[in-house]
Amino acid sequence: MSINSFGHLFRVTTWGESHGIALGATVDGCPPGVPIDAANLQHWLDRRKPGQSKYTTQRREADIVEILSGTYKGRSTGTPIQLMIRNTDQRSKDYSAIAGAFRPGHADITYWQKYGIRDPRGGGRSSARETAARVAAGGVARAVLAQLRPDLRIIGYMVQMGAHRIDRARFDAGEIERNPFRTPDADAAAEWAAYLDGLRKSGDSVGAVIEVTASGVPAGLGAPIYGKLDADLAAAMMSINAVKGVEIGEGMATAALTGTENADEIDMRRDGPTYRSNHAGGILGGISTSQDVVVRFAVKPTSSILIPRQTITRSGTPAEIVTKGRHDPCVGIRAVPVGEAMMACVLLDHLLLHRGQIGAAGGRIG
Amino acid sequence: MSINSFGHLFRVTTWGESHGIALGATVDGCPPGVPIDAANLQHWLDRRKPGQSKYTTQRREADIVEILSGTYKGRSTGTPIQLMIRNTDQRSKDYSAIAGAFRPGHADITYWQKYGIRDPRGGGRSSARETAARVAAGGVARAVLAQLRPDLRIIGYMVQMGAHRIDRARFDAGEIERNPFRTPDADAAAEWAAYLDGLRKSGDSVGAVIEVTASGVPAGLGAPIYGKLDADLAAAMMSINAVKGVEIGEGMATAALTGTENADEIDMRRDGPTYRSNHAGGILGGISTSQDVVVRFAVKPTSSILIPRQTITRSGTPAEIVTKGRHDPCVGIRAVPVGEAMMACVLLDHLLLHRGQIGAAGGRIG
Amino acid sequence: MSINSFGHLFRVTTWGESHGIALGATVDGCPPGVPIDAANLQHWLDRRKPGQSKYTTQRREADIVEILSGTYKGRSTGTPIQLMIRNTDQRSKDYSAIAGAFRPGHADITYWQKYGIRDPRGGGRSSARETAARVAAGGVARAVLAQLRPDLRIIGYMVQMGAHRIDRARFDAGEIERNPFRTPDADAAAEWAAYLDGLRKSGDSVGAVIEVTASGVPAGLGAPIYGKLDADLAAAMMSINAVKGVEIGEGMATAALTGTENADEIDMRRDGPTYRSNHAGGILGGISTSQDVVVRFAVKPTSSILIPRQTITRSGTPAEIVTKGRHDPCVGIRAVPVGEAMMACVLLDHLLLHRGQIGAAGGRIG
Amino acid sequence: MSINSFGHLFRVTTWGESHGIALGATVDGCPPGVPIDAANLQHWLDRRKPGQSKYTTQRREADIVEILSGTYKGRSTGTPIQLMIRNTDQRSKDYSAIAGAFRPGHADITYWQKYGIRDPRGGGRSSARETAARVAAGGVARAVLAQLRPDLRIIGYMVQMGAHRIDRARFDAGEIERNPFRTPDADAAAEWAAYLDGLRKSGDSVGAVIEVTASGVPAGLGAPIYGKLDADLAAAMMSINAVKGVEIGEGMATAALTGTENADEIDMRRDGPTYRSNHAGGILGGISTSQDVVVRFAVKPTSSILIPRQTITRSGTPAEIVTKGRHDPCVGIRAVPVGEAMMACVLLDHLLLHRGQIGAAGGRIG
Repeated sequence: MSINSFGHLFRVTTWGESHGIALGATVDGCPPGVPIDAANLQHWLDRRKPGQSKYTTQRREADIVEILSGTYKGRSTGTPIQLMIRNTDQRSKDYSAIAGAFRPGHADITYWQKYGIRDPRGGGRSSARETAARVAAGGVARAVLAQLRPDLRIIGYMVQMGAHRIDRARFDAGEIERNPFRTPDADAAAEWAAYLDGLRKSGDSVGAVIEVTASGVPAGLGAPIYGKLDADLAAAMMSINAVKGVEIGEGMATAALTGTENADEIDMRRDGPTYRSNHAGGILGGISTSQDVVVRFAVKPTSSILIPRQTITRSGTPAEIVTKGRHDPCVGIRAVPVGEAMMACVLLDHLLLHRGQIGAAGGRIG
Repeated sequence: MSINSFGHLFRVTTWGESHGIALGATVDGCPPGVPIDAANLQHWLDRRKPGQSKYTTQRREADIVEILSGTYKGRSTGTPIQLMIRNTDQRSKDYSAIAGAFRPGHADITYWQKYGIRDPRGGGRSSARETAARVAAGGVARAVLAQLRPDLRIIGYMVQMGAHRIDRARFDAGEIERNPFRTPDADAAAEWAAYLDGLRKSGDSVGAVIEVTASGVPAGLGAPIYGKLDADLAAAMMSINAVKGVEIGEGMATAALTGTENADEIDMRRDGPTYRSNHAGGILGGISTSQDVVVRFAVKPTSSILIPRQTITRSGTPAEIVTKGRHDPCVGIRAVPVGEAMMACVLLDHLLLHRGQIGAAGGRIG
Repeated sequence: MSINSFGHLFRVTTWGESHGIALGATVDGCPPGVPIDAANLQHWLDRRKPGQSKYTTQRREADIVEILSGTYKGRSTGTPIQLMIRNTDQRSKDYSAIAGAFRPGHADITYWQKYGIRDPRGGGRSSARETAARVAAGGVARAVLAQLRPDLRIIGYMVQMGAHRIDRARFDAGEIERNPFRTPDADAAAEWAAYLDGLRKSGDSVGAVIEVTASGVPAGLGAPIYGKLDADLAAAMMSINAVKGVEIGEGMATAALTGTENADEIDMRRDGPTYRSNHAGGILGGISTSQDVVVRFAVKPTSSILIPRQTITRSGTPAEIVTKGRHDPCVGIRAVPVGEAMMACVLLDHLLLHRGQIGAAGGRIG
Repeated sequence: MSINSFGHLFRVTTWGESHGIALGATVDGCPPGVPIDAANLQHWLDRRKPGQSKYTTQRREADIVEILSGTYKGRSTGTPIQLMIRNTDQRSKDYSAIAGAFRPGHADITYWQKYGIRDPRGGGRSSARETAARVAAGGVARAVLAQLRPDLRIIGYMVQMGAHRIDRARFDAGEIERNPFRTPDADAAAEWAAYLDGLRKSGDSVGAVIEVTASGVPAGLGAPIYGKLDADLAAAMMSINAVKGVEIGEGMATAALTGTENADEIDMRRDGPTYRSNHAGGILGGISTSQDVVVRFAVKPTSSILIPRQTITRSGTPAEIVTKGRHDPCVGIRAVPVGEAMMACVLLDHLLLHRGQIGAAGGRIG
């Protein structure tokens, strides 16, 4: 019920503001005996670190994670794991301008209306920096998954930037880490580079669509009705800053399909059922089918842009606002590792939940 | 954490199978002194009742709701409200055929793989009949909202059937209850009628997109980071049977927008901030802005169709399956009141949650 | 977080008022495939049924439990199990008198002050009748425990009535079901009979202490720090009507012991550690040791007595009140099966919770 | 559901081990705008700090609390407040001896049996040092209570050490902070000093009973049935290290009372109901009455003593163990501020919970 936590058994509570002393994640319910060290978690954090290319904010944030509790001699003890990331680069002056006026499309105004007080430095709690804590927690989840389900793989990538979609025919997983956009389509990467250069110079920003796929997920994960695997994934992805839409499998496009087209026909192979298609995105009735779990989410363009927008101040007087500072022209790029982290946390949580209620039981086919 | 519950303070637990003795909802955390009676709840249930037109299943289900607890002399007492709907029409024979083979696109196979036992009668717990309990609970939420926020209005309607979208220029709220598809576009209703007739005769089914809008929502509802209003709405809608995608405001289309296009500029009017557009769908940073809260979700076509599909039996032998029985050619039609109910429950829950943490405080503008 | 629920994974939500239509329990998270039928649950309900002797209320309540959902062909399906008990004997007239004035020592006044509305019939939600739902849910927990831990045994018994304690030297488990007080001390039973006869005739009531013991509990159950096995047991027992104190092992008496006296020394036997004493009541650091889990709780005398007490009415005017009706001179007698039920629910919950987080792992000794 | 968290709306998650890098508390759900600073929290921490007298451990722990998030310019922002206490004195060598053998009466053995790995340094997570985090979180709760209920007062004190009880006739609240035992009975303090000196020299330890009283608690707090105020208090106190019993009002002694003796008769005074006694400890039916809320808990003697005890090693071989190091002869002394902190957290949580469900409503008397 804790409003800054998610998960049932593997429960993550993130805390901290963009420009406060530190931010982090309190990870509760982690199985014991799992090899977990800071270097391992740092690997994932470095993937969302700013300044990796000219297409992401040039803010200098080391984002070094420290493990304050929950491990002993490099292994989890089953007690809460406290992950802390100190805030190093705190140029509050960059934000002094926006303390008074509200950025259109930003949480400035709603935080003020809700709480009557807000930390304006870097957006405070509403800053995308909060997602660094998710990535660290996701690293813990991945370490546990590596032990419980060695074959489980999670990869995220960008499938759309602005109006430009990738060509699925050119999908090459190996390409993802070779371009600054984490897209599996090399040609798209080239086009997007030029497109984003123009946007960046004009001081504008643009949205994107990220897809996260998990393979090697066993059948049976998910807890109908309100702990459905897809319901939890939807909440997890929608809770990421700037996300406005979430899709499972065919997603919104399923509306245009007929029952004949949409149903994934089933065959039997030596080791179990196999499907002729995956419109379902690996989930039926809220439970995993053993096919790839496929989730997509849309990230809106950041509202921190250099183009003047019309707004009001706290006193209600009209104002024009321009957000100086070092922002991401396409925040979607850095959302890829965040989506992967949320996928890891949700899958592990349901793996533990399933083990708790069902144990080794379940129905066999063939 | 309960896997069949949702909500933080206003907490709904649904129970029951399609062809069991009864199904219902246990509603906990309802404020006391609110006028609630069965007739009032029945009004909402009748809106999702089958057999309202030739476009919905002809199954005869009275779906009469009984209040077993939590009210005294027509008012809520603040204790759990138990809502029960008896199952009257239990033609199990219709389903005897599918007990053995798994319907492609249906939860038959995943329930079996997870639990090792399933109630095949009418899909058991995975049946859309579970949503009747949500609608009843939503009726309770609406009764409380009517008292706490008299100006709050929730309406749902269909904006797409199959590949056919409505024309927003023809949007007429008054039209919604006048056609069997609950669409605000009269011309679309006419086209869809012909289209669905054909589908129904061919024994096929089709998907749809439902939009639910809430007006009169005060600014400040929502609890960042993981109790965000949009995250909870996403989970609530994705938990509805057959839903594969959820959008807030611009939804997936936000990816194609630039920051300049996407940000809703702000003006000041006498009674507070006003916005020049609503790309955000009434939510910024997970908190309501006071604009209309706009949610859309895609419903896949039902997998219970008369066209033979390839599948396997529990023993793993290949089989061809045809689902006889009385199904909805477009389940999306009956999903409209369900989406409205989920919206009502989530908004009330956050209204109570906000009152609990913040009370009457909050930030004033102007 | 639901205020009428308890349990982490095995989650029970009770609902209903004493003289409403029905009351019951919604049991979520039950493992699938467990044999559960109404007859089996009825066995436990009959143990708390009124009118079993002249020492309990003569109210005629059949307390027949019906299973409305969650089982198929006599086995749990893993979906919510709805247990309903209809209210048959609703002599509201018995309570008309107390609708106006508040019974000293009763929840009448606090329910009114909290909710501003209350169901006065039989105490409404605050009636001990609510515990019938716990006993039914406990029956489900026992059925699952019988499958997961066949050697686990739970017995409850009365160790004190009024100022009269049993003599532990005369402890005979076989005696418990042979006397109306469920005490293991036959001589005490004889004394108490005479004592309670006198009390009953004088229209007064008296308190009692119940002890519940669980043997065959594996080591390792309990989840520090706030999901400690003893913390959950304390909440579970304290939530029972009229309970004012809870003890684990030595309980309050531990304060008078020295470290030398209190620590249970450990020896090694073939199959694991064994202890020379059990001051700890089978729990160390919130985790079970494999010794018997021993819990005691004190039940206050019912406030519904025939002796006039001074009170006030809702309007604040002084009044003298006498509670007519058919009450228990010692409600503690019927609290025995309730304590057993809570023990069963808490142990199963922690068994599932442990399996979820730890699986088959854990530390071996020897 | 998080096993290291407690509270419904005001939710505290503690983390950290005795001799790790740091320990602390993540406080979620705190109302915004409340003055909170480290100095204010330090005041409470200093009350449980070791080495305040020769009767508590001589370990040197500064226990300095740092606020890492959730406040801005000295006020809470409504976002998670992260409280960190660095571990300074980490003499692991003191504990090297016990890494192998299990201390009788200590969680060493159960942590090992549950997790298969444990941090032996200072007892790791099972150390009483965890309670420092509770006291810090309690400081936050007190700051909020000071704003919401200025008249609410919480005081804790020792009423029994070993077999020695205080004389209630000598109760003097002013005395509590004047003696090292925090007892309101000056004469008892004198006797206990001599008694504890002897124990300390003999290397033994002893138990105690702490009472915590809250005055100025409004009527109506508590949420039946499983969120009862007394059920939550019982869980909160029982979750404190070494606690084996919890009592509300008369507690276990209520068993010996008759209904006539136990019921607190009610009179009306100008501002509301008043009671002629407080056997109920300020709680009826799980809801506060407006009388003082009175809770007592028994703390067992620490198992870390200098007197040799019989035990076994991890390999199952018999061993004799003596716990060197700097321990509390009566840990109950330092449990006083911990009990106060838990009371503060539970009361604030229920104040917010009540405001959320009921708002300003409720029933008036007179």
